Amino acid sequence: MQNFEFHNPVKILFGKGQIAAIAREIPAGVKILLTYGGGSIKANGVYDQVKTALAGREVIEFGGIEPNPRYETLLRAVDLARREGAGFLLAVGGGSVLDGTKFIAAAVPFQGEPWDILAKGARVASALPLGSVLTLPATGSEMNFYAVISRQETREKLAFGAPAVYPRFSVLDPETTFTLPERQIANGVVDAFAHVMEQYLTYPVNAPLQDRMAEAILLTLIEEGPKTLAAPRDYDARANIMWCATMALNGLIGCGVPSDWSTHMIGHELTALHGLDHARTLAIILPAVMRVKRGNKRAKLLQFAARVWGIEAGAEDERIDAAIERTRRFFESLGVPTRLSAYGIGDGTAEQVARRLERRGMATLGERRDTDARQIREIVALGA
Amino acid sequence: MQNFEFHNPVKILFGKGQIAAIAREIPAGVKILLTYGGGSIKANGVYDQVKTALAGREVIEFGGIEPNPRYETLLRAVDLARREGAGFLLAVGGGSVLDGTKFIAAAVPFQGEPWDILAKGARVASALPLGSVLTLPATGSEMNFYAVISRQETREKLAFGAPAVYPRFSVLDPETTFTLPERQIANGVVDAFAHVMEQYLTYPVNAPLQDRMAEAILLTLIEEGPKTLAAPRDYDARANIMWCATMALNGLIGCGVPSDWSTHMIGHELTALHGLDHARTLAIILPAVMRVKRGNKRAKLLQFAARVWGIEAGAEDERIDAAIERTRRFFESLGVPTRLSAYGIGDGTAEQVARRLERRGMATLGERRDTDARQIREIVALGA
Repeated sequence: MQNFEFHNPVKILFGKGQIAAIAREIPAGVKILLTYGGGSIKANGVYDQVKTALAGREVIEFGGIEPNPRYETLLRAVDLARREGAGFLLAVGGGSVLDGTKFIAAAVPFQGEPWDILAKGARVASALPLGSVLTLPATGSEMNFYAVISRQETREKLAFGAPAVYPRFSVLDPETTFTLPERQIANGVVDAFAHVMEQYLTYPVNAPLQDRMAEAILLTLIEEGPKTLAAPRDYDARANIMWCATMALNGLIGCGVPSDWSTHMIGHELTALHGLDHARTLAIILPAVMRVKRGNKRAKLLQFAARVWGIEAGAEDERIDAAIERTRRFFESLGVPTRLSAYGIGDGTAEQVARRLERRGMATLGERRDTDARQIREIVALGA
Repeated sequence: MQNFEFHNPVKILFGKGQIAAIAREIPAGVKILLTYGGGSIKANGVYDQVKTALAGREVIEFGGIEPNPRYETLLRAVDLARREGAGFLLAVGGGSVLDGTKFIAAAVPFQGEPWDILAKGARVASALPLGSVLTLPATGSEMNFYAVISRQETREKLAFGAPAVYPRFSVLDPETTFTLPERQIANGVVDAFAHVMEQYLTYPVNAPLQDRMAEAILLTLIEEGPKTLAAPRDYDARANIMWCATMALNGLIGCGVPSDWSTHMIGHELTALHGLDHARTLAIILPAVMRVKRGNKRAKLLQFAARVWGIEAGAEDERIDAAIERTRRFFESLGVPTRLSAYGIGDGTAEQVARRLERRGMATLGERRDTDARQIREIVALGA
């Protein structure tokens, strides 16, 4: 096992009715900036629940944070928060609203051009405190300190992370997700699956508990994903998916093990270039990464085949191929295409993605930093 | 899944050499009270590592905290901390030193008789901040806010818990455990195993991720326990046991599921009455609880048999019996006896334990609060 630090102070309030508890989690006397997305929270009753819980508190609002939240939009929220003297941010929505709100939290007290937080890794020494009411299980943003922000102008999609933007609390009420479009639930299952794989499918470091915990999440996603698509109001199925998505990226399964975020890194470029849903880029790229990096990942691919898909017979390469194919078919079974061609995206993209990553100093990716431009092209081409 | 709150702000510093990092985790300028046990940390070099890490800091010491830490001893530490104006407690040792130090932390600012914290559940509103360097993987105290304290005078062993006594940080360096007596490692494996079982072996609430995470810890303990006894300086085996023990009782596997702490409750009485090692009481009582409560725990016993021991053939009751027997034999294989008779303790104890629990208002235990005095007697008698 590798050395590690783990520190995750996010308070989770899980279950039906928990929105009512948020008032006691927000310091008295602060002005609260409520952030949200396209307005679905007004249709499904979540907005009303939040307003009721905050009755008597001073609340201002900023709606319209889009999927793949845009820097341009968020700067307007930063202005509003500064002008109004907001003392607490409450994000109500999915991963995009949460990520956007983390960025607002960091940008409000930031000296200088906030884009530097993303493009230059400028240090986030402090941030406005924030909390969240999660309405879409997928990104894990509710229990980590990461955010991914897009800039329309330059077609960039960049990440940052800082302990200062850990949510103070996150409410996870599965009932808030009952009315989500099927596509978003399917995307969420794929996103969580990819998060686990990126911390699991590397090389063995003798960390059997972390391996089994990762496999526990994968098995549960495979079992509960189809259930929750078939029966959106099955509380337990949705609760299980929600808890899986949080556990997939709260740092725990990554303790003491290597990781390979190349699927996300390549996927972000596809979203930036072509506007694909985040999860859909992962469904295309993850199976391709598994194929191209089968040398590095051999031992773990065989373990994944056996423990997650029950594939134990046949030659090693057959088992690996079968496991990759089962993974791809799982995504397809959720209604998530695993080919770029499904979106009418052609050959040129492979070269474009490789060049963009190179330009950003990410010419080599992977747990051994040996996924180079040639292999990045190969991965994207395999997804074609 | 049941509703739950999860909030665990303990920072874990895991791996070899991490003791060197403690100085930056302790606020500057405070007087540090270093607490420890019988002095093994002086023989194995841990004391020196800690003192080196704290060079230039003001440190006072309190040694001699015994296994099953005693109220009488801890009150002397409380006096010392008050007299000297200690501003931070650093526990260096195993679960007993950690538990004792949590109690000191709570007692220093407490108004009134500190025993009330244990006997009357008096509220712990504040506490001195504390950190820990763990040298014995077992109790999970390094990442939770519980402590169990004994009072010699009245032969009582009582627990308390309060968020104020969460360690600010805990260092888990597997190398500090290389020189532990075999008995303590074996005890630690049993203690962690029992912690998992008490959050897992109840009734199903459709929480498959929590189930699989619990099974992940059990399987890893079964695999790594014998390894680490056979090769005490196998770093990875010891690291794996250490992380299992922490994960067994940091609140995570208990999220959203019922629990049954009757094995610990009954075990505490056996320690209080007869001075048995804590883990040895669990090795006696857990298999007996599984037998006596097989009705309540039927579905989970079958799942445990199949997933943890691979027992899938035979009639249901045969499978359950086989799983209980495998569990008992696992403890015995670690050198931990599973019968009271191994300690020369006779029949009268069953009645005594039942009466003591009754007197403390714990006449019914278990996830359904239906383990009554008659069944408690039956459980202890089965362990005879």
